[in-house]
Amino acid sequence: DPNLKVFSLNSNPDLAKQIAEHIGIKLGKCIVSSFSDGEIQISIEESIRGSEVYVIQSTSDPVNQHLMELLIMIDALKRASAKTINLVIPYYGYARQDRKARAREPITAKLVANLLETAGATRVLTLDLHAPQIQGFFDIPVDQLLGVPTLSEYFMSKQLDDIVVVSPDHGGVTRARKMADRLKAPIAIIDKRRPRPNVSEVMNIIGDIQGKTCIIIDDIIDTAGTITLAANALVERGAKKVYACCTHPVLSGPAIERIQASAISELVVTNTIPLPEEKKTDKIVQLSVAPLIGEAIIRIHEKLSVSRLFN
Amino acid sequence: DPNLKVFSLNSNPDLAKQIAEHIGIKLGKCIVSSFSDGEIQISIEESIRGSEVYVIQSTSDPVNQHLMELLIMIDALKRASAKTINLVIPYYGYARQDRKARAREPITAKLVANLLETAGATRVLTLDLHAPQIQGFFDIPVDQLLGVPTLSEYFMSKQLDDIVVVSPDHGGVTRARKMADRLKAPIAIIDKRRPRPNVSEVMNIIGDIQGKTCIIIDDIIDTAGTITLAANALVERGAKKVYACCTHPVLSGPAIERIQASAISELVVTNTIPLPEEKKTDKIVQLSVAPLIGEAIIRIHEKLSVSRLFN
Ligand SMILES: Nc1ncnc2c1ncn2[C@@H]1O[C@H](COP(=O)(O)O)[C@@H](O)[C@H]1O
Ligand SMILES: Nc1ncnc2c1ncn2[C@@H]1O[C@H](COP(=O)(O)O)[C@@H](O)[C@H]1O
Repeated sequence: DPNLKVFSLNSNPDLAKQIAEHIGIKLGKCIVSSFSDGEIQISIEESIRGSEVYVIQSTSDPVNQHLMELLIMIDALKRASAKTINLVIPYYGYARQDRKARAREPITAKLVANLLETAGATRVLTLDLHAPQIQGFFDIPVDQLLGVPTLSEYFMSKQLDDIVVVSPDHGGVTRARKMADRLKAPIAIIDKRRPRPNVSEVMNIIGDIQGKTCIIIDDIIDTAGTITLAANALVERGAKKVYACCTHPVLSGPAIERIQASAISELVVTNTIPLPEEKKTDKIVQLSVAPLIGEAIIRIHEKLSVSRLFN
Repeated sequence: DPNLKVFSLNSNPDLAKQIAEHIGIKLGKCIVSSFSDGEIQISIEESIRGSEVYVIQSTSDPVNQHLMELLIMIDALKRASAKTINLVIPYYGYARQDRKARAREPITAKLVANLLETAGATRVLTLDLHAPQIQGFFDIPVDQLLGVPTLSEYFMSKQLDDIVVVSPDHGGVTRARKMADRLKAPIAIIDKRRPRPNVSEVMNIIGDIQGKTCIIIDDIIDTAGTITLAANALVERGAKKVYACCTHPVLSGPAIERIQASAISELVVTNTIPLPEEKKTDKIVQLSVAPLIGEAIIRIHEKLSVSRLFN
């Protein structure tokens, strides 16, 4: 369909290329560069009048740069008479600022939703929002894909025995449950407790992990503090082997160092955020969500339900 | 008045301090930092419920970072029940993207106006907008101060003889006229023309500059190409001495090198954008607009006209 156009900005050029290949079209031509003073310059190099446009951009580090690229692109598309402006945001940044944890804090995840709508977005497609409430921050349709199917498929292909899927906290149990169902495995939960103020946390493990192969699953791994402590606790309590996986490999600060030094034998992530060369290690396996996103774009464009892709 | 609060973000901490001193209050307490993954974290450390809040932030390089700091601060202030949120944006970035110069380009200056209003800004105070039309991009009140009075005062104090104020292009004549009136001097205009396509530009000078002390005035000096070519042309045509001045010293890329190598004997700028150490040279003089902005805040807070400050 010549009315379907896919553009890539600067966060995920490889993923975007794979998505376009999956759909069977060429990426739209646009130039996204900077003026000498750092201001973003965007120019769309082909007509998009009346088109259904998909823009692929994660708001990953450098988050403010990537977000402004996206906002300016939306503005340019709107003024060039795109029929619909569909944002594909594999990783939705600022998602952890989704509530006022303390007085006088911003709710940046909501602000970003408002900014995207103000610029002119008409739909959002994303993966694993840190909090499902963020869908409600938008007044336009938001489709959320999950990393679980892609991650589960990888572990199934490894044909592991005696698996337990582990949630690193109580908030992640639903996600662990979904993966456990796919792998036909039981779950365990890491139940961090601080017995008294100023006493260090105790890693209590709910569920049987003795002699088992554990797969810890989370949505985001950022500085990798939680996940490496969890992995080490599992091994201490008798786990045979520990895998970790997540949808969004933020991996900032000491993350790589911690993972390398930890009991994690393999970390499996997706490419919602690309891994720069300096973050690639032999412990990290990266899976592509391009087929999933490509399929979702085709289904949205054909006005079919995308919920089918969750199962 | 305890209901008047002034906060500084990260673009202009020194200017903000001077403005607060001029008004005779302390800067509001807030922490503007970054998480490990580069996301901005803001927390306001004093109650602002019911206050008239002024936030000082130029959207200068790094423009996307500075803009996001401002948007997130507005969100935090709004949710903390500020009565009014008044933005003091000494330098309004993205102002040169104020129209579609070519097909399918964004109008980022308008996008930024929409974003600031969406976040919750109730008023804007700025200096020398690159195009006066940008005031109309906002649906909230915008007061525009001028650099001309501060710059003119400096040149008056130098007691120069035989001055001509020079506009580097036809777009800047109104500004040059304003300065010339203050200095009781005539004006000249640099009239760049390209005689035929692919033939280099000719610097035609309209007005008498022979043996005169020229003061070239512009709003923004970015890479300094225009202004240094103009200065060299003036000296070649017999000017005795050439000063240059502007409100906004963007000074990106080759600017400092070009200025040092040019016929400009002194460049006078304001502090709407701070000069980092590596841009400070003995040719550059920086004047503070803190008294001007401080006065404007006092007048706005007392519900008086600020247009008085233009004369
Ligand atoms: N980019 C970030 N990096 C680290 N922590 C964050 C970030 N954004 C928000 N937070 C904090 O993370 C907490 C929320 O995370 P969670 O409990 O996992 O939803 C809040 O205390 C936030 O202040
Ligand atoms: N940050 C920038 N640096 C250099 N040129 C710019 C910038 N933003 C916009 N422009 C270009 O400057 C021109 C407008 O400048 P002006 O004619 O002075 O209003 C347009 O051609 C823009 O594409």
